[in-house]
Amino acid sequence: MNAEPLILDGNKVAAEIKVRLASRVEELAVKGVVPCLATVLVGEDPSSATYVRMKVNACNRLGIRSVRIDLPKETTTEQLIEVIQQLNKDPEVHGILLQHPVPHHIDERAAFDAISIDKDVDGVTTEGFAQNAFGFAMFPSCTPAAIMAIMDYYKLQVSGKHAVVVGRSPILGKPVSAMLLNNDATVTTCHSKTTGLEHFVRSADIVVAAVGKPEFVRGDWIKPGAVILDAGYNPGNIGDVDFNACLQHASAITPVPAGVGPVTIAMLLKHTVDAATKRSAN
Amino acid sequence: MNAEPLILDGNKVAAEIKVRLASRVEELAVKGVVPCLATVLVGEDPSSATYVRMKVNACNRLGIRSVRIDLPKETTTEQLIEVIQQLNKDPEVHGILLQHPVPHHIDERAAFDAISIDKDVDGVTTEGFAQNAFGFAMFPSCTPAAIMAIMDYYKLQVSGKHAVVVGRSPILGKPVSAMLLNNDATVTTCHSKTTGLEHFVRSADIVVAAVGKPEFVRGDWIKPGAVILDAGYNPGNIGDVDFNACLQHASAITPVPAGVGPVTIAMLLKHTVDAATKRSAN
Repeated sequence: MNAEPLILDGNKVAAEIKVRLASRVEELAVKGVVPCLATVLVGEDPSSATYVRMKVNACNRLGIRSVRIDLPKETTTEQLIEVIQQLNKDPEVHGILLQHPVPHHIDERAAFDAISIDKDVDGVTTEGFAQNAFGFAMFPSCTPAAIMAIMDYYKLQVSGKHAVVVGRSPILGKPVSAMLLNNDATVTTCHSKTTGLEHFVRSADIVVAAVGKPEFVRGDWIKPGAVILDAGYNPGNIGDVDFNACLQHASAITPVPAGVGPVTIAMLLKHTVDAATKRSAN
Repeated sequence: MNAEPLILDGNKVAAEIKVRLASRVEELAVKGVVPCLATVLVGEDPSSATYVRMKVNACNRLGIRSVRIDLPKETTTEQLIEVIQQLNKDPEVHGILLQHPVPHHIDERAAFDAISIDKDVDGVTTEGFAQNAFGFAMFPSCTPAAIMAIMDYYKLQVSGKHAVVVGRSPILGKPVSAMLLNNDATVTTCHSKTTGLEHFVRSADIVVAAVGKPEFVRGDWIKPGAVILDAGYNPGNIGDVDFNACLQHASAITPVPAGVGPVTIAMLLKHTVDAATKRSAN
């Protein structure tokens, strides 16, 4: 039906963001400021370790300093918060990333909320969520921000469109719903208790898959011409969308990998540079 | 089609809440604690003055003390914040209500956010919004909380239903969308930029009208058997819903007046008593 759907190339979007960041990092260097991201990883989950390594490498390539803190899986909530509070106080650290998920015995919400709002470059705090929902966040949650950046880069219309978000997590489904709403989409948020999920997805002009289940969104759920953003990243480099099947119906779609993922990292870098810029101006 | 739609009686719901509150107020009195709500009104808008008077009267009837602060319309943002900060410090004051809307020259968001989260009984702060969106707010925004209380009282199912919210304001459309979502509804948030609003409303099992336009939601937009919650309150005691026309199609509907309004006030009282209870326990 759509002979040539547009493949939304996250590497291209990320590259453009990084070019602009590189010159900003140089300007900061002239002032003697080196943006610095602290990453905190708790436990030994191999995927989480990979994500952290990817983020650290991306920092390095751009001249952003990184401080990597790896904590044992037995770390308590109190110990983790103590580490975060030290990073809050450290004037050399501009941004703090606590890699999600943390081990189950840790109160992740309390740990996220220990991050100072000025350093919450991953957009995970309760306060940051609300600022984002009200449209004035300094650092919106990175994956939702990446999704918006991709649509912006490819000039895909959001205003007046019906966006269906599949998933309602605090760091993905909820904030991306809020950002789409603030950009004048009519937004439906679906989840595991939704009755007739296919029906909702079929009515969508924009589909955001943020459910964490491999190839969950099927080709025959897609309205012809819909735009599909796949925020999933499951083992084996598989998204939440059945890419090949959905490609038959969509007008535009992000692949996995090389879709939302690289832009998410670019947003993290951008927020870190923003934080350093803001601090250097104070 | 629906011979006998249920009229959702807000006065009845409010009365039940107040009966429970009355005994809690008595228990607090034994401990020498009198719950106290401070109301802040800026300017001379007659509707706002009426709302404040209704809230103060409701406090009085229940044995909740009220401190009424009326400020001239020329009050600056800084002066208003100073007043709020004094109330934050006052150990006798348990809850603070800043009547919405404030005059245009005031930064309402900054004023709301000056309210201490412990005294934000109207649920208007940025932090309180996010706590509510994440499902752990002490004081959810009062009108959204009232809507949920009405559905709870009448045992109307929310989980798995499609709720369509018309309106996206920070104190009504957004928080009620969040609360419906947290109660497992599939939630669509519509607004002035929505294309095909009638189509969305027609697909709703639950319609929440929070748009601030008299009789905006029409009878022929309503799916037979839908539940309608009208959070509007326009001059002349007119809701956002064309009541008589919608009554023909709905299975349950709130009237205006005597629908969401009295329960909103009851929630404000409940939150004030909750705040006093929490303080007395500390």
